[in-house]
Amino acid sequence: MKSWIERANVATCDFPIQNLPYGVFSRDGEAPRCGVAIGDRILDLAALQAAGLLDTGGAVFAQSALNDFMALGSVAWDRVRSRLVELLAAGGDAALREGQGLRAGALGPLAGSRLHLPFEVTGYTDFYAGRQHAVNVGTMFRGAENALPPNWLHMPIGYNGRASTVVVSGTDIHRPLGQMKPPSAEVPFFGPCRRLDIELEMGAVVGLPNRMGTPVTVAEADDMIFGYVLLNDWSARDIQGWEYQPLGPFQGKVFGTSISPWVVTKAALEPFRTTTPDREKELLPYLHEPRPLLYDIELEVHMQPAGAATSSRIAQSNFRYMYYSSAQQLAHHAIGGCRMNTGDLLGSGTISGPEKSQYGSLLELSWGGKEPFTLETGETRSFLEDGDRVTLTGWAQGDGYRVGFGDCSGTILPAPAEKNWTAETAD
Amino acid sequence: MKSWIERANVATCDFPIQNLPYGVFSRDGEAPRCGVAIGDRILDLAALQAAGLLDTGGAVFAQSALNDFMALGSVAWDRVRSRLVELLAAGGDAALREGQGLRAGALGPLAGSRLHLPFEVTGYTDFYAGRQHAVNVGTMFRGAENALPPNWLHMPIGYNGRASTVVVSGTDIHRPLGQMKPPSAEVPFFGPCRRLDIELEMGAVVGLPNRMGTPVTVAEADDMIFGYVLLNDWSARDIQGWEYQPLGPFQGKVFGTSISPWVVTKAALEPFRTTTPDREKELLPYLHEPRPLLYDIELEVHMQPAGAATSSRIAQSNFRYMYYSSAQQLAHHAIGGCRMNTGDLLGSGTISGPEKSQYGSLLELSWGGKEPFTLETGETRSFLEDGDRVTLTGWAQGDGYRVGFGDCSGTILPAPAEKNWTAETAD
Repeated sequence: MKSWIERANVATCDFPIQNLPYGVFSRDGEAPRCGVAIGDRILDLAALQAAGLLDTGGAVFAQSALNDFMALGSVAWDRVRSRLVELLAAGGDAALREGQGLRAGALGPLAGSRLHLPFEVTGYTDFYAGRQHAVNVGTMFRGAENALPPNWLHMPIGYNGRASTVVVSGTDIHRPLGQMKPPSAEVPFFGPCRRLDIELEMGAVVGLPNRMGTPVTVAEADDMIFGYVLLNDWSARDIQGWEYQPLGPFQGKVFGTSISPWVVTKAALEPFRTTTPDREKELLPYLHEPRPLLYDIELEVHMQPAGAATSSRIAQSNFRYMYYSSAQQLAHHAIGGCRMNTGDLLGSGTISGPEKSQYGSLLELSWGGKEPFTLETGETRSFLEDGDRVTLTGWAQGDGYRVGFGDCSGTILPAPAEKNWTAETAD
Repeated sequence: MKSWIERANVATCDFPIQNLPYGVFSRDGEAPRCGVAIGDRILDLAALQAAGLLDTGGAVFAQSALNDFMALGSVAWDRVRSRLVELLAAGGDAALREGQGLRAGALGPLAGSRLHLPFEVTGYTDFYAGRQHAVNVGTMFRGAENALPPNWLHMPIGYNGRASTVVVSGTDIHRPLGQMKPPSAEVPFFGPCRRLDIELEMGAVVGLPNRMGTPVTVAEADDMIFGYVLLNDWSARDIQGWEYQPLGPFQGKVFGTSISPWVVTKAALEPFRTTTPDREKELLPYLHEPRPLLYDIELEVHMQPAGAATSSRIAQSNFRYMYYSSAQQLAHHAIGGCRMNTGDLLGSGTISGPEKSQYGSLLELSWGGKEPFTLETGETRSFLEDGDRVTLTGWAQGDGYRVGFGDCSGTILPAPAEKNWTAETAD
């Protein structure tokens, strides 16, 4: 299917009419509102709703977050998507295409628009559900024979992350301060993280809640998911290594998590569904998948040092390498009766493929820092330097089009200046 | 100091004029609003504000959560407290005492009022900062010689909890379903938790935020704290035991966390400040305390089986047994640049004293289930049975008065019925 917006029909465009991802945008200090990316434009859904071309009940798109729309549920999701296709398809409803004034007002340029965090992140949970990553990290830390923890093949291992520091692509990330203790050291020391890393992940966005005390099946969990984003789980390996026993990652992970500005819907990804791999161990029934719930999504990691003219692709992977789907993760998350809310974000876990060029973290790409890799600029890296810009990209490849996510990028700023930690406050 | 509300002057009353804790209440289907407990009454702050007796700027007390008031900061906190003392002190401002109509309308009975979650919990973090508890649990799981993890004496170990299932006292808790694997078993099984436990904790309520990427000192952290609540961190030991390596507690903790309905302010607790214990290992400067930041607060745990006429006190402890103060926990939480928000809740970690009668969890009281304890009803317990009601109480003892927290209670309901896990949803 083609759109009358020409740029949307270019095969390499992330935002064809088959995609229609949702985000929140503003221009020149206007109030942030909801929009859909189409070609090189953003369709202003608040303007469309105000013009009476979109019937959703309530001004859900005049909000600075997608939560109100997501909370309407799948019938509304489907109705809005169908209506947008009518309005944007070549030869479709002319109301927008021919609408004098409206077309100009509601179809502004994507370039130069400010993209905001697309939804209020009510909770953030990060999983560890990519097998190659778990094996790689386990091998480095515990040896090949103990690489996978005993529970790993029986459940998607996850931990609660920090929702308050989930930020939209383009937000700079300060190198964190913290406690570290190399095995050689007698006592821990304090200072800027020295092993700053990324994690290539996808994030599932929960659209519909369950009730506290009410588990959901995997099928119900899939129905609760509104869409997906790219996710970079910035990680301080040295801080994490000293703190994480026995209660898991904390300060090594809470300083920032970046997501792409566009939420690609389940409907747009439907043609790209694929199955999770064969199970080495039979899963308990509450984790059985009724149908293919994983997706074939190409993923890339690019790095550009400060001042470098070019960015280097340092890894290529694919979402299909996950061992557990996001629906399985959500069902596991709710199995104990945990209430899941509209706006909850589930990080997939690092998505590493079988080849070294497919590893989704610098820890793996440089094998614990022992094998630095080389960028196109000739520089080498084991972990992130100040000024490095990391960009994740991803798309599902269709026949003559691709359903893309846009960039998920962030630049590393130096650690904050240290304070006079022991000073009393002035009061 | 005495109040003209007689019940507030009884030495065993939790809510004397020295306390003035904040909560959210409603009666007969009225909209929830903010109030202060005084004696056997709740002072309706929205009504007081509407009557012009409370000048705070903005109708912050007509809200269903304390967040807007907390966000005003310490100058507003102090001004409101001083004004409330004027209005409630014997011989003080007569505007409320003599106000025709207002007194009746703004001073309803505490009994029969519905108490709501007092603030919107924007984030929940649980620490592990009580030494006796860490030693007890470590001894059971790793042996006495490895009881304390190597990092424990250097930082307050914590993990991100689940904010969506923090509930107010009186909310029933469903026994969680989940995966468990006893060491003896070959493979995990699925079913209701068999080792359901409590954790006696205090919760610090963050009133003021920091900026992302901006660490705070311990003194600044203490200034950010609005007040404290009692906290019961319900725990599924068998689910936790199988899942928690390597990323920490998850389904074993996310099914419910209960807090007391009243937030006792830092100002009310000021006379009860005490110091954390001597340090076995010198702390890094960012964790140094500029002054006493811990509190002397008596704590009790009571248990009442279904149908039992009496409740049994099963433990007595004190907040002063903590090794790290909440201010130290908050400073550590923000050291990497984590943004802390108004409404964040920090669980202290289980507060166990040196004596067995002072242990703050059933795991410790029954020593891993090996030594069941006996209730006044003659029944024994190792872990929680369906129908058991657990109530935490706490107060700081002043000279002729006590600053109390009210009850933090919850009753265990049976696990939810299992579903047809593998059914497709109807669509």
